[in-house]
Amino acid sequence: MSASKINVGIIGASGYTGADAVRLLAMHPNVEIKLLTGNAHAGKALAEIYPQFGGLDVPDLVKAEDADWSTIDAVVCGLPHSTAQDVIAKLPDNVKVIDMSADFRLHNADTYRQWYGRTHDNQKLLGEAVYGLSEHYGDAIKNARLVACPGCYPTAALLALLPLLTAGLLSTDDLIIDAKSGVTGAGRSLKEQNLFSEVAEGMNAYGVAAHRHAPEIEQEVAKAAGIDDVRVNFTPHLVPMNRGEYVSVYARANKAKAADLKAAWQAFYADKPFVRVVDEAPATRHVRGSNFCLLSAFDDRIDGRVILFSTLDNLVKGSSGQAVQNMNLMFGFDETAGLGQQPLYP
Amino acid sequence: MSASKINVGIIGASGYTGADAVRLLAMHPNVEIKLLTGNAHAGKALAEIYPQFGGLDVPDLVKAEDADWSTIDAVVCGLPHSTAQDVIAKLPDNVKVIDMSADFRLHNADTYRQWYGRTHDNQKLLGEAVYGLSEHYGDAIKNARLVACPGCYPTAALLALLPLLTAGLLSTDDLIIDAKSGVTGAGRSLKEQNLFSEVAEGMNAYGVAAHRHAPEIEQEVAKAAGIDDVRVNFTPHLVPMNRGEYVSVYARANKAKAADLKAAWQAFYADKPFVRVVDEAPATRHVRGSNFCLLSAFDDRIDGRVILFSTLDNLVKGSSGQAVQNMNLMFGFDETAGLGQQPLYP
Amino acid sequence: MSASKINVGIIGASGYTGADAVRLLAMHPNVEIKLLTGNAHAGKALAEIYPQFGGLDVPDLVKAEDADWSTIDAVVCGLPHSTAQDVIAKLPDNVKVIDMSADFRLHNADTYRQWYGRTHDNQKLLGEAVYGLSEHYGDAIKNARLVACPGCYPTAALLALLPLLTAGLLSTDDLIIDAKSGVTGAGRSLKEQNLFSEVAEGMNAYGVAAHRHAPEIEQEVAKAAGIDDVRVNFTPHLVPMNRGEYVSVYARANKAKAADLKAAWQAFYADKPFVRVVDEAPATRHVRGSNFCLLSAFDDRIDGRVILFSTLDNLVKGSSGQAVQNMNLMFGFDETAGLGQQPLYP
Amino acid sequence: MSASKINVGIIGASGYTGADAVRLLAMHPNVEIKLLTGNAHAGKALAEIYPQFGGLDVPDLVKAEDADWSTIDAVVCGLPHSTAQDVIAKLPDNVKVIDMSADFRLHNADTYRQWYGRTHDNQKLLGEAVYGLSEHYGDAIKNARLVACPGCYPTAALLALLPLLTAGLLSTDDLIIDAKSGVTGAGRSLKEQNLFSEVAEGMNAYGVAAHRHAPEIEQEVAKAAGIDDVRVNFTPHLVPMNRGEYVSVYARANKAKAADLKAAWQAFYADKPFVRVVDEAPATRHVRGSNFCLLSAFDDRIDGRVILFSTLDNLVKGSSGQAVQNMNLMFGFDETAGLGQQPLYP
Repeated sequence: MSASKINVGIIGASGYTGADAVRLLAMHPNVEIKLLTGNAHAGKALAEIYPQFGGLDVPDLVKAEDADWSTIDAVVCGLPHSTAQDVIAKLPDNVKVIDMSADFRLHNADTYRQWYGRTHDNQKLLGEAVYGLSEHYGDAIKNARLVACPGCYPTAALLALLPLLTAGLLSTDDLIIDAKSGVTGAGRSLKEQNLFSEVAEGMNAYGVAAHRHAPEIEQEVAKAAGIDDVRVNFTPHLVPMNRGEYVSVYARANKAKAADLKAAWQAFYADKPFVRVVDEAPATRHVRGSNFCLLSAFDDRIDGRVILFSTLDNLVKGSSGQAVQNMNLMFGFDETAGLGQQPLYP
Repeated sequence: MSASKINVGIIGASGYTGADAVRLLAMHPNVEIKLLTGNAHAGKALAEIYPQFGGLDVPDLVKAEDADWSTIDAVVCGLPHSTAQDVIAKLPDNVKVIDMSADFRLHNADTYRQWYGRTHDNQKLLGEAVYGLSEHYGDAIKNARLVACPGCYPTAALLALLPLLTAGLLSTDDLIIDAKSGVTGAGRSLKEQNLFSEVAEGMNAYGVAAHRHAPEIEQEVAKAAGIDDVRVNFTPHLVPMNRGEYVSVYARANKAKAADLKAAWQAFYADKPFVRVVDEAPATRHVRGSNFCLLSAFDDRIDGRVILFSTLDNLVKGSSGQAVQNMNLMFGFDETAGLGQQPLYP
Repeated sequence: MSASKINVGIIGASGYTGADAVRLLAMHPNVEIKLLTGNAHAGKALAEIYPQFGGLDVPDLVKAEDADWSTIDAVVCGLPHSTAQDVIAKLPDNVKVIDMSADFRLHNADTYRQWYGRTHDNQKLLGEAVYGLSEHYGDAIKNARLVACPGCYPTAALLALLPLLTAGLLSTDDLIIDAKSGVTGAGRSLKEQNLFSEVAEGMNAYGVAAHRHAPEIEQEVAKAAGIDDVRVNFTPHLVPMNRGEYVSVYARANKAKAADLKAAWQAFYADKPFVRVVDEAPATRHVRGSNFCLLSAFDDRIDGRVILFSTLDNLVKGSSGQAVQNMNLMFGFDETAGLGQQPLYP
Repeated sequence: MSASKINVGIIGASGYTGADAVRLLAMHPNVEIKLLTGNAHAGKALAEIYPQFGGLDVPDLVKAEDADWSTIDAVVCGLPHSTAQDVIAKLPDNVKVIDMSADFRLHNADTYRQWYGRTHDNQKLLGEAVYGLSEHYGDAIKNARLVACPGCYPTAALLALLPLLTAGLLSTDDLIIDAKSGVTGAGRSLKEQNLFSEVAEGMNAYGVAAHRHAPEIEQEVAKAAGIDDVRVNFTPHLVPMNRGEYVSVYARANKAKAADLKAAWQAFYADKPFVRVVDEAPATRHVRGSNFCLLSAFDDRIDGRVILFSTLDNLVKGSSGQAVQNMNLMFGFDETAGLGQQPLYP
């Protein structure tokens, strides 16, 4: 490690989150990309998979098991859940890990088994993993070796909910989280439902009452509210756009109005560079390609109820951007290093 | 009027709902399109405005005030609210009217004034207007001279809600209606927020706690539930697609499960050709361009709560298609006449 | 076969062209859909694959080899090339065949082998197959047992070119055909390049100087021009839309101006219901979902050159719609039967 | 002007090109945004017009006539043609001007009058303006006070054509330039044809044989080929995407093959950071949001002919990005300063 730069590896660089990590880290002033793994594409140049990177000077893809970790200071892991924990378990201790998979998000291994269909085989690692919601666990992240970046939907929902729950401004009863996502949230996997002709010019709900991000949201909601357990409604919808996530929360306020909620957010996020409170309903296009999250609150016409909106780019603040933000915290870099891009709109 | 065909005029044929009425009526076995009005384009052929109709033999556009109503049996009115009531008030009594505007939907003139910003100047007509939700007011529609077709969002929401409320299966407390619409819902008006570059690749909520379809939904929900008044949450979102409307309802059930709700729908809609109950979450693409509405219900993970989905094409069942369906009822035609098109998917 | 209806089977009903054939034939006044094959989905209801058809009364999918052809008058074949010829070869002689694959389009078996990578094993059938460009081979189609519907690109290109070449108005030297297609042209196959996130918000050329529709266009161009052989430039591009094909032809005119070309088209297509000549550059949205093809011509700023545009819906006039049109010709039905749908725009 | 930073104003910051200049300059290490003009929105914060910039510390919009130019070193002008020349003519001499309008691109004032419908009233300025195709006029740009950035289409076309014409590898006879653009190319103006519902799910040619970028391309093609005058075919098409421009050139080669053309490009652009030669047909998504231009060449199946592709982001290399690149040249900054963003894909 030079005085100013660290050597970073990206595990699973051929997926969308891995590719977006490359996009961001290629411009990071404190980072050298020294290793790219992609088992299905080992031996290829990254530009064969992602031609947009043809101008970058980065190493070819190798298999994770063939990688030389000796000079690597940190890895960003873009593997799918289940594969991720197996690969991460084999990394040398001196490599700091920012994991974008779901494998270390749920503190309770039983909950993990229930929702992800396999036992968690790395409970020691699970025990030391820090939940990487940057604005809320910054102190722990700074000292962590392994950070589990939240899911894209949980990031959007929790950035809105946590400060309000902690302040006792919202009821946890019948919390309704209606979420909408662009298609990159499904990754680059070959499934019929991700084909252009199946998605364009249409929309639908999916994973109704069964989406894996529900227990993750519940874990954090319960913790912030200081209760043992909670059930929330989390209902995702697929929308015909590449990037963007939009969460609409319907909740009962505890003697608070939208203005109070906004004041609580303003106070909590005053010194946080990536979360902004806005007056209008936000739009995904106002965050596209950037690490920003926008929040807004409205009084419902039903007395005592409020409506919250939260939006972010699922591949950036919902994944790779938050991973870079966590890396910045772990290595003492400026929190915004490599994340200065303004939204691409239109 | 010949034995088998009626003469129909379309008022406001240059808007999207007017154009979709032309599309449907051009194939209707019992209809001759005899009159098209479009004040801003009077004197032009319809194909100058909508080149897709270049192969149709229909009359040129005239101003509404210059139209000859003497041979017209029915009009479909695609004018914006406020303009519509003024034009409709001047029509001869023998012309039956299917109005797609908002002017005759709200029975209470005070509510109309409050939400639409002008007094209702035709309260006698308002008194005789029938709310044109075809599957629920069919008997009244058959005998009506003036039918007020519901808004697109209310049609989707009420087709899901009314049978369940009537049967006492749903609570009216804290009814949450999160709605998503394609962009044609905004019509063809020149507003910056409707530009392609403002809408594509993004989404946002709008009209939060302030959308005019809320009082319309509330009028019908209260009536079905047998209560005086109700407040519902209605929160629309704009999604980057042309057509399609998707309503997600979050509600507390009265000791009923999703299976009970589906059974109630099946019973109510058994002989209705355009409403289908499906098991999966429906998709807008499964109704695109057609007059169908698909319903589905799920048990929430929160005990005692249910999730309902309703989807339709906002320009067809949400507007022109329901207008044609109502015309069929008013004139004793087969309810599906002119509406046999299967969805255009992909 | 009743006096007025024939029994039709759709082979390969689970692909996009097969599904669009179902969409159109379900409304055809002279057709009963009696058989649907789909080998990968045998035993399923069509609505399991295409939920939009949940309201139709059609038979379940069976394997082609298990089908009972005894009561079938005609089949529309939506199989991929190579598979199609094998299945068609086994059909009983009394079944008329409208094939949407590429297997019987090229008269020369050597050319077929060169472009499609296998020998043609049914040269007798190939010899009797009629090229199904309805407006140009109508007389032969009427008497054919086997009609090979043209590819989508060739249909668009040839409807523009053939009348002009026959009349000697265009040079065949350096004919440039720049084509743009929506994504359904690629079918429903699981390829990375067809994923929404790979296609949306972007475009690219593909199959440059190597697309299989080139020899098909050349076969017909040479024939119309009365020459032995010709090479044309055919360059397709993929555009982020579901349906629609747009062909821009750049050519040298033989002492003719755009007005002369339009006059020649007008004369040739005067009694053809689906081809229209328009003055402005046409748009794919003006034909979406319909069987229309729109043509237009302009004088180039380069002296002596002209620019031609042709647009159609690749799944309708470019595939299933033309198949139905050919069936109408083969059975003596009204040429427009089942094809009356107006374009779905917006 | 500090040692390392210059003060920059953006004239017409409320248009799309102005906004994209803000996006890029906000991250530029040598630039302070000191002035934003927008006459229709004077007095507003930029974030009222473009909420995505809510986190930026930039001045409010003022009217151009009220601006204080005394501390401004350079302006980027995003005004429409005709307005631009009037405003630029009034700027103090010490302000360097990078104009993104069409007003100073055509050297011949008669040609300007013919295509833009007004006389050029600032012929002295026109005489000193440098055509800002960065890779080809770099030396002149470095010493210019007024740089006229090329149009988006000409940038894409000329980056492909100029090195080949200069090297005598292409014929200028019958040069066919078929171009496709995303919708932001039309700016943010309120025209019906730019509405989402008019553009999505469809495409069309426009400005056939009449687009203003034709004479601009011809000016540079003639110059590179060393001839007095030339006519080219330039045919633009509108494609349903926000950003991206794709140019397909069909030309006769002078005894050269595609490999020779690529070698000539490689040689010419060897030290140019933003132009890359690729082997496959490029894709707009591989440049989205970045300042890159990708080139590729293929041998046509017609003997002696070649097919060239060029793609860029119309708002970046086709407008604001090239403006920043030119500013870098004019002030001696690193040519890539502020332009390091990798493409946003997906």
